[in-house]
Amino acid sequence: MPAYRMVIEYDGAQWQGWQTQPDGNTIQDAVERAFSISLGVPVSITGAGRTDAGVHARGQVAHFRTDRSLDLFRILNSVNGILPPTIAIHRIEPSEESFHARFSAISRTYHYHLRGGKSALQPHRDWIVFPFPDRQLMNAAALQLSGRHDFSAFCRSTTRPDARMCTVHSAEWFPGPSEASLVFVIEANRFLHGMVRAIVGTLVEIGQGRRPATDIHTLLETKNRAHAAASAPARGLFLERIRY
Amino acid sequence: MPAYRMVIEYDGAQWQGWQTQPDGNTIQDAVERAFSISLGVPVSITGAGRTDAGVHARGQVAHFRTDRSLDLFRILNSVNGILPPTIAIHRIEPSEESFHARFSAISRTYHYHLRGGKSALQPHRDWIVFPFPDRQLMNAAALQLSGRHDFSAFCRSTTRPDARMCTVHSAEWFPGPSEASLVFVIEANRFLHGMVRAIVGTLVEIGQGRRPATDIHTLLETKNRAHAAASAPARGLFLERIRY
Repeated sequence: MPAYRMVIEYDGAQWQGWQTQPDGNTIQDAVERAFSISLGVPVSITGAGRTDAGVHARGQVAHFRTDRSLDLFRILNSVNGILPPTIAIHRIEPSEESFHARFSAISRTYHYHLRGGKSALQPHRDWIVFPFPDRQLMNAAALQLSGRHDFSAFCRSTTRPDARMCTVHSAEWFPGPSEASLVFVIEANRFLHGMVRAIVGTLVEIGQGRRPATDIHTLLETKNRAHAAASAPARGLFLERIRY
Repeated sequence: MPAYRMVIEYDGAQWQGWQTQPDGNTIQDAVERAFSISLGVPVSITGAGRTDAGVHARGQVAHFRTDRSLDLFRILNSVNGILPPTIAIHRIEPSEESFHARFSAISRTYHYHLRGGKSALQPHRDWIVFPFPDRQLMNAAALQLSGRHDFSAFCRSTTRPDARMCTVHSAEWFPGPSEASLVFVIEANRFLHGMVRAIVGTLVEIGQGRRPATDIHTLLETKNRAHAAASAPARGLFLERIRY
């Protein structure tokens, strides 16, 4: 059946994450409802990344299949009109029939936003951290994430024990858009549940001098989540881009 | 008298601009009130750029003078606590006595955010434009802004006729953070009242093919605001950075 892919942006603050849940108020549910209304038939949407409650997306990708012939421009406007202001569809285009938003993806990129003080423009999309961590210390530690590792030390216990290998392509902190702000950019072939937030929480403690920079290497070896830091809050995390 | 400088971020949506006005609800008034409460004496604040109603800032700079000895860390936290959530002070530091936020500045940089469709993350900080303008056409036109010109064609009639020369150091459109988004970055020694918004309005018409790209050159020659396009809305404009 013909497949269509789209790029989705959302403010996750008021949502219980991407993935459909029983009695849940999820982004996937809202998008499926809007497409079903617009097309007049039930539509199932599959997303590339299952973002948690409170996590935002600038470049979530999703697909659906239908035999109906579609006026994509009309549907884009109609779906955006039905969706609440916190969810926007950017582009809907035909894709290869074999395209699968999740399984065809070769990498995902997440951003995490950190601030040293009050934020007027993004008050609910930053983690405000004091004392402000040292960027060079955090980058020295982040280098140890690159490559293929078992990330058991940085995932929830609900993650299948036999599927915890990930290949991190890059992980680095950059200056952010405002004074005393930093953005962590991490790209990997896949991410485990809670992985970015556990990594960011640990890197911040390293940047504050509360852990040695070599700790990332040690944690990867121990494979024990209890030894890593508490997770950074969801509100600073953005699913930025999916590569195919 | 000792001088102090600070960097200020604000969401301009609910404010009638930077500059104090009779009966006005302005950012300068709010910042002066907060400092006066925190220091226990009246404080006058001078800003580098007089942003209009609805315009945002990530890097407004301001100064004040006082003879009192100040615990800057305590004052920063106290002032940020007094100010509403839409205004944040990032840094307060002692400066040379001769420092003046407005007259010591050597250049200002503004950003303007454009979107081709619905925005979930910045719904009130983008100008949504359809049809979406061509970036290369706009950049060919923007090149003509560089250098020292009389910008009468791009300012309000209230601007003093003998003070309309500005030197534009750079003016270019870049891809924005999301799909179908662009950011215009313009740096100049000074800006006239309404100048960036008149320029953006005109460049967008050029990018939509409604005016020739050579129009900027012609408009600069005619010096007539009536020939340029309607101003782009305030909500997409950010005072990004002041150089000293």
